[in-house]
Amino acid sequence: MKFLLINGANLNMLGQREPEKYGTTTLADIENSVITKGKELGVEVEAWQSNHEGEIVDKIQSARGKYDGMLINAGGYTHTSVVIRDAIAAVQIPTVEIHMTNIHAREEFRHTSLLSGVCIASVIGFKEQSYLLALEGLVKILSK
Amino acid sequence: MKFLLINGANLNMLGQREPEKYGTTTLADIENSVITKGKELGVEVEAWQSNHEGEIVDKIQSARGKYDGMLINAGGYTHTSVVIRDAIAAVQIPTVEIHMTNIHAREEFRHTSLLSGVCIASVIGFKEQSYLLALEGLVKILSK
Amino acid sequence: MKFLLINGANLNMLGQREPEKYGTTTLADIENSVITKGKELGVEVEAWQSNHEGEIVDKIQSARGKYDGMLINAGGYTHTSVVIRDAIAAVQIPTVEIHMTNIHAREEFRHTSLLSGVCIASVIGFKEQSYLLALEGLVKILSK
Amino acid sequence: MKFLLINGANLNMLGQREPEKYGTTTLADIENSVITKGKELGVEVEAWQSNHEGEIVDKIQSARGKYDGMLINAGGYTHTSVVIRDAIAAVQIPTVEIHMTNIHAREEFRHTSLLSGVCIASVIGFKEQSYLLALEGLVKILSK
Amino acid sequence: MKFLLINGANLNMLGQREPEKYGTTTLADIENSVITKGKELGVEVEAWQSNHEGEIVDKIQSARGKYDGMLINAGGYTHTSVVIRDAIAAVQIPTVEIHMTNIHAREEFRHTSLLSGVCIASVIGFKEQSYLLALEGLVKILSK
Amino acid sequence: MKFLLINGANLNMLGQREPEKYGTTTLADIENSVITKGKELGVEVEAWQSNHEGEIVDKIQSARGKYDGMLINAGGYTHTSVVIRDAIAAVQIPTVEIHMTNIHAREEFRHTSLLSGVCIASVIGFKEQSYLLALEGLVKILSK
Amino acid sequence: MKFLLINGANLNMLGQREPEKYGTTTLADIENSVITKGKELGVEVEAWQSNHEGEIVDKIQSARGKYDGMLINAGGYTHTSVVIRDAIAAVQIPTVEIHMTNIHAREEFRHTSLLSGVCIASVIGFKEQSYLLALEGLVKILSK
Amino acid sequence: MKFLLINGANLNMLGQREPEKYGTTTLADIENSVITKGKELGVEVEAWQSNHEGEIVDKIQSARGKYDGMLINAGGYTHTSVVIRDAIAAVQIPTVEIHMTNIHAREEFRHTSLLSGVCIASVIGFKEQSYLLALEGLVKILSK
Amino acid sequence: MKFLLINGANLNMLGQREPEKYGTTTLADIENSVITKGKELGVEVEAWQSNHEGEIVDKIQSARGKYDGMLINAGGYTHTSVVIRDAIAAVQIPTVEIHMTNIHAREEFRHTSLLSGVCIASVIGFKEQSYLLALEGLVKILSK
Amino acid sequence: MKFLLINGANLNMLGQREPEKYGTTTLADIENSVITKGKELGVEVEAWQSNHEGEIVDKIQSARGKYDGMLINAGGYTHTSVVIRDAIAAVQIPTVEIHMTNIHAREEFRHTSLLSGVCIASVIGFKEQSYLLALEGLVKILSK
Amino acid sequence: MKFLLINGANLNMLGQREPEKYGTTTLADIENSVITKGKELGVEVEAWQSNHEGEIVDKIQSARGKYDGMLINAGGYTHTSVVIRDAIAAVQIPTVEIHMTNIHAREEFRHTSLLSGVCIASVIGFKEQSYLLALEGLVKILSK
Amino acid sequence: MKFLLINGANLNMLGQREPEKYGTTTLADIENSVITKGKELGVEVEAWQSNHEGEIVDKIQSARGKYDGMLINAGGYTHTSVVIRDAIAAVQIPTVEIHMTNIHAREEFRHTSLLSGVCIASVIGFKEQSYLLALEGLVKILSK
Repeated sequence: MKFLLINGANLNMLGQREPEKYGTTTLADIENSVITKGKELGVEVEAWQSNHEGEIVDKIQSARGKYDGMLINAGGYTHTSVVIRDAIAAVQIPTVEIHMTNIHAREEFRHTSLLSGVCIASVIGFKEQSYLLALEGLVKILSK
Repeated sequence: MKFLLINGANLNMLGQREPEKYGTTTLADIENSVITKGKELGVEVEAWQSNHEGEIVDKIQSARGKYDGMLINAGGYTHTSVVIRDAIAAVQIPTVEIHMTNIHAREEFRHTSLLSGVCIASVIGFKEQSYLLALEGLVKILSK
Repeated sequence: MKFLLINGANLNMLGQREPEKYGTTTLADIENSVITKGKELGVEVEAWQSNHEGEIVDKIQSARGKYDGMLINAGGYTHTSVVIRDAIAAVQIPTVEIHMTNIHAREEFRHTSLLSGVCIASVIGFKEQSYLLALEGLVKILSK
Repeated sequence: MKFLLINGANLNMLGQREPEKYGTTTLADIENSVITKGKELGVEVEAWQSNHEGEIVDKIQSARGKYDGMLINAGGYTHTSVVIRDAIAAVQIPTVEIHMTNIHAREEFRHTSLLSGVCIASVIGFKEQSYLLALEGLVKILSK
Repeated sequence: MKFLLINGANLNMLGQREPEKYGTTTLADIENSVITKGKELGVEVEAWQSNHEGEIVDKIQSARGKYDGMLINAGGYTHTSVVIRDAIAAVQIPTVEIHMTNIHAREEFRHTSLLSGVCIASVIGFKEQSYLLALEGLVKILSK
Repeated sequence: MKFLLINGANLNMLGQREPEKYGTTTLADIENSVITKGKELGVEVEAWQSNHEGEIVDKIQSARGKYDGMLINAGGYTHTSVVIRDAIAAVQIPTVEIHMTNIHAREEFRHTSLLSGVCIASVIGFKEQSYLLALEGLVKILSK
Repeated sequence: MKFLLINGANLNMLGQREPEKYGTTTLADIENSVITKGKELGVEVEAWQSNHEGEIVDKIQSARGKYDGMLINAGGYTHTSVVIRDAIAAVQIPTVEIHMTNIHAREEFRHTSLLSGVCIASVIGFKEQSYLLALEGLVKILSK
Repeated sequence: MKFLLINGANLNMLGQREPEKYGTTTLADIENSVITKGKELGVEVEAWQSNHEGEIVDKIQSARGKYDGMLINAGGYTHTSVVIRDAIAAVQIPTVEIHMTNIHAREEFRHTSLLSGVCIASVIGFKEQSYLLALEGLVKILSK
Repeated sequence: MKFLLINGANLNMLGQREPEKYGTTTLADIENSVITKGKELGVEVEAWQSNHEGEIVDKIQSARGKYDGMLINAGGYTHTSVVIRDAIAAVQIPTVEIHMTNIHAREEFRHTSLLSGVCIASVIGFKEQSYLLALEGLVKILSK
Repeated sequence: MKFLLINGANLNMLGQREPEKYGTTTLADIENSVITKGKELGVEVEAWQSNHEGEIVDKIQSARGKYDGMLINAGGYTHTSVVIRDAIAAVQIPTVEIHMTNIHAREEFRHTSLLSGVCIASVIGFKEQSYLLALEGLVKILSK
Repeated sequence: MKFLLINGANLNMLGQREPEKYGTTTLADIENSVITKGKELGVEVEAWQSNHEGEIVDKIQSARGKYDGMLINAGGYTHTSVVIRDAIAAVQIPTVEIHMTNIHAREEFRHTSLLSGVCIASVIGFKEQSYLLALEGLVKILSK
Repeated sequence: MKFLLINGANLNMLGQREPEKYGTTTLADIENSVITKGKELGVEVEAWQSNHEGEIVDKIQSARGKYDGMLINAGGYTHTSVVIRDAIAAVQIPTVEIHMTNIHAREEFRHTSLLSGVCIASVIGFKEQSYLLALEGLVKILSK
């Protein structure tokens, strides 16, 4: 099995941005731990990040036929992007939504996700562990 | 007369994405049929697609003084993009909005278009025929 | 093929009412041009107008089994009539919604249509050309 | 006792319109069964239908002093008609509201009834039996 | 000068309907007193009533070129009728809106009027005197 | 056939609580009349009441496989209980919702029912007769 | 009979402020014409103006037992003042609300009046004639 | 470490209730797999279920000082219970919220959780795996 | 005179739960001080607490004819319980609502109380003193 | 200790205004009983009233450094005055909000208070006793 | 050129009120620095403050013909005063709105300004510098 | 000190786009005047523009540690971009928001800014002067 891990806007700032909310772990740390954990579970994970909505759409489209699953933390695009939603729906690859922080305990405009409706599951609030749990969960769902 | 046909996010997936909603016609098929029909009507049509909001804005800006009309199906950006709206308003080229599906029979967040207010007309729900009707309509409006 | 063209409330005033919005073409002009264009396309069109919601319901009901398609510009009833919506749904004849003006650029209560959900397609804002494009679009959809 | 049974817009299509929702029973079948059941209960029932909001108002006004009770299924007017509401309030005849389908399990604009506030009771969702139960209920209420 | 006085739905019930709200004066009484007062003011008034929205639209359309002013109490249509609004706008005859009761002290759905936006003035809450004041006011406005 | 009649919060106060709204009939009177009427119709009815949301859920769950139908007047829980809704959906027993008073003519928070969406039908406003009509209606529906 | 005419905020600017909306008539002109018309009708009118909400409340309170009726154009306070509303309710003097312009055809925050609910009637949109019609209407109501 | 696993209303129906949504696994199966997995991770898990809101509050209160973490799937109470929210806040034990289904792809009233604001994290949509992932995540968070 | 003091969900946690908001006084302390103060005022007070909505309804119902007044701090049920509201209305015992904290300075869902409408008065924000003031106030009201 | 008692708009009408809601006690009676009760509790109370929002702001500002506490019944300004709210916040004197009537059982625009958020506590609905309870409560809070 | 600087409610408390939000600079300091800066720019500035809405209206009215521009920080009236808005519109003097704090980062009811629509520009959030920047900006705009 | 001046979507059209709203000054003119003014104030300003949301995020991220302040006019992204908001928050550089036109006097969707909450101040409506005032204000704030 092959998975694509997509991180969206501002997640490349991890470890620098508001560490009291996100910790000091960098995005590279997280990507590496997901790749390592993937190996343990027999899944090859490709990690990719962009701040550009259009590039995320391009990337998801290109995943069609190449990946068995997707993990996505779209950052701020979670709450505003119809086009990322449409791209996930279009490629029909099972996708899990990830948030490091509890979005329901932040500003009101972060309480809803345009992506939830086209993802099969979500992991929210476990900081960097959210990524590993999402990976594990997706493997289990697809192994059935 | 010269027209610019702009297709926005995920429309390059046509023929692959949810064919029960959009049919098996590809975007190239549609662009070709618009170009061909344009020739019959004496209009040169340039067809262009992007998944990037910013590129669509750049393209619309560059249309100023080069095209007599625009046809636009902005895909998911229809419902969220103030900047595409502003670009259309800025270049002051008569523009027709196109949707292949009946957006009013889909999810509620697709019921409104930020672009309608700055377009002169819309054609909605005729699948790929929406493009040809929009082309024809724009020609007639401009020929007056 | 046989189509029914229905015009609703106040469209009989065309050519007299607010000509800066609707032009000087009369309803008879429009009906004649639709009938003529229908002949070219091999479709017999019957044109009919009423200011009465109940009569429009009666007319739509009577269309069952007699017409292959309907074209409707319900005028102000577009925004308020559940019963016209129900009648269109009940007769199960493919119907296209028509508006001469861009309803999205007028008062807010004109931005939504109760009919859209039961029509297959809409043509909006091409002034009298909206009728001809709708006719042409419906012919193409039904010819498939 | 004498009752007036009013059926509003599109109910004359019963048996033809969306039979999976409304069954194959025609309006005449229903009216006859209400009249028959009325006889058993010692009530003379007059059955009447119209697709016209204004005619329904006229009919309700004419009921004043002639009927002891009214049964009304106003169809789509249920959700939009202030004037039918006013007519029921004006004639001050005890009225029961009827719906064949569970309006709360359909489109959101069908969830509210402008008539409920001036009717004494409602029977909803028992298909054609809704009419007979409403009749029986009104008889019992008035017999007290 | 010639005025048209239009009374809408359920106003023919005046004198019978909820007299504690509307008094015992009948519609004929009101119409006569408006006609008489009109004579005093040098205005010929034609009085007309209907419970049918479509007929009211027909009547307003027919007023074009025949009347210098209109007085309208649309009854319950006040709050729901886009088509009567459109008809008033279409004929471009100065029109005054009349309500016998203080609509702001009744149910919430009576607090707004779809007609206000196209009328030049309103007289609300003076019971039958509302009609005479409206007549007088319209005469004064038009005499300027 | 065997039915379960469930009365929810405060219905045990019937005959004591606000008799001008609910009459002087006690809950025992109503339960007896439903049981008696059930016998006439060949249905065994078990009557049960609780003020506890959780007990009502327990009771509905226990109905699975034991009853052919349910009649429920959940009292104040009608407007707030997702868990009773879920329990009804879970046991998949045809259920009719009952209200003695016209809930649409009371406080606004009583205008909606969370239960309607999972019940097949409702009887509202016939005071204690609501129970008998609901019983009769459910028998007829299930007898088809 | 003795009436109090109250003009609220900015009405002292009449004749200077936005004359295309309000005309060139000054407040003194209006007050004089109301006083004169009052004399004809046998009513003594005292005219008073203030830009201060608190002073208007003081004035209304002081009217208790001294006036038989009040005429009020509260200007911008119409839409925001609970305390003027309370003062009118407290003194229990029949009051008519006046607006020179059609408030329903202006900004949305001017569409509602906090005062309507405690006034018996309103005259809206007849420019300075609104005052005279309101005076006349109040005289007629009180003469009954 | 010792954890409390709380299942709320209707989760005891698992394996019976709408299996197309929840699968055929019973609650006992899930509880056992969480207990087993807990043993592997060195955590003693107590599993408990109730349909009663008040009992869930009692149970959470009693957890104070006895457990290091809580896992909760409150079922339908998720969307309505302020008191369960308050109980979680009061005992100040780190708590993870669990949902088997994607609540954002169901009825709108299930889109918000009153509990999210006082839980540290959520796992949504992995069917029975949601429980195991939540357990694992909570262990990891607490092990830091 | 005899009063019933009801404390609802989570108030048994007082002195333990979030002491910075509620202080270290326990519920027993409060109940004792209310009972003592009651003796001074010549009122026998019975104090009772439950986390269960249904038990609170049972208790209120059982108060009928046994108590002259009730004091209630329903905790989180304040904002969600229609059934406690109905029970208070049903027993028709004068009731005062109590809150220790200023609910208007907390989360938005705590700003409204479903109970206020059926209570005669409220005391909010005086911490444990709220109870004694409510007792004193109810005694004074009833002594009139 | 020294307290300032502020009464806002229309409270000077007490004893005259709608006595069925407010009783026949005058404001002077209330002020005297608060002053007397203050003496018993060892607090000097200054009583002051105004109908003017600006004067209330001036008065509150002048209280800075002169009073230990404030009691305020702002009347209708309760629901609309941001400036009184700001003044209370600015002087940082502990303040208790008072209402004689149960504002939650009156018009909807009286259900919210702009002042609650900056007051420490409220006493609502005990008629004139509200003042004495508020005084007593504030003394107790400040004596801690 | 001559400008009028108006400060509204509670701004006279500057330097005393919540200094962490507004700093220790007093209103006199600010007024002096604006007057001084005005001199440098060749503008005579008159500074004036009031807590009274009505006085602010009076002052603005009196500015007509005497000042070339106005600078206004209306304090809490910003969010509630239609009459100050109307006064600014009436005198037709170019006006700049000033806020010392970022109103968009405070309570939600401070996010909107009723004055913005009639002012030509705004300076927000630069603490006391907001005044100087507004002055400078207005000079530049008027010098064109 | 070093500042970054960011102009977002469609601002490169300045001088061409709707000159009646924005004037004929080009973006280069504005950038030059800001750079020149910066030199006078001892600040080095880098000016940069993009129509791409993702590029703006990249640019803001890259500003971390390189600039002491930012000036941003995000154009249409102001109203829709959570990711630009997040980027500003992430780099923690003091930022001032700029608008050339009074956004509160344009379409309603332009009345709110997602960026305001993370900027320290705003300058709105002074046309090209908005840039210079914002620069000056930021210098003053940072110089303290």
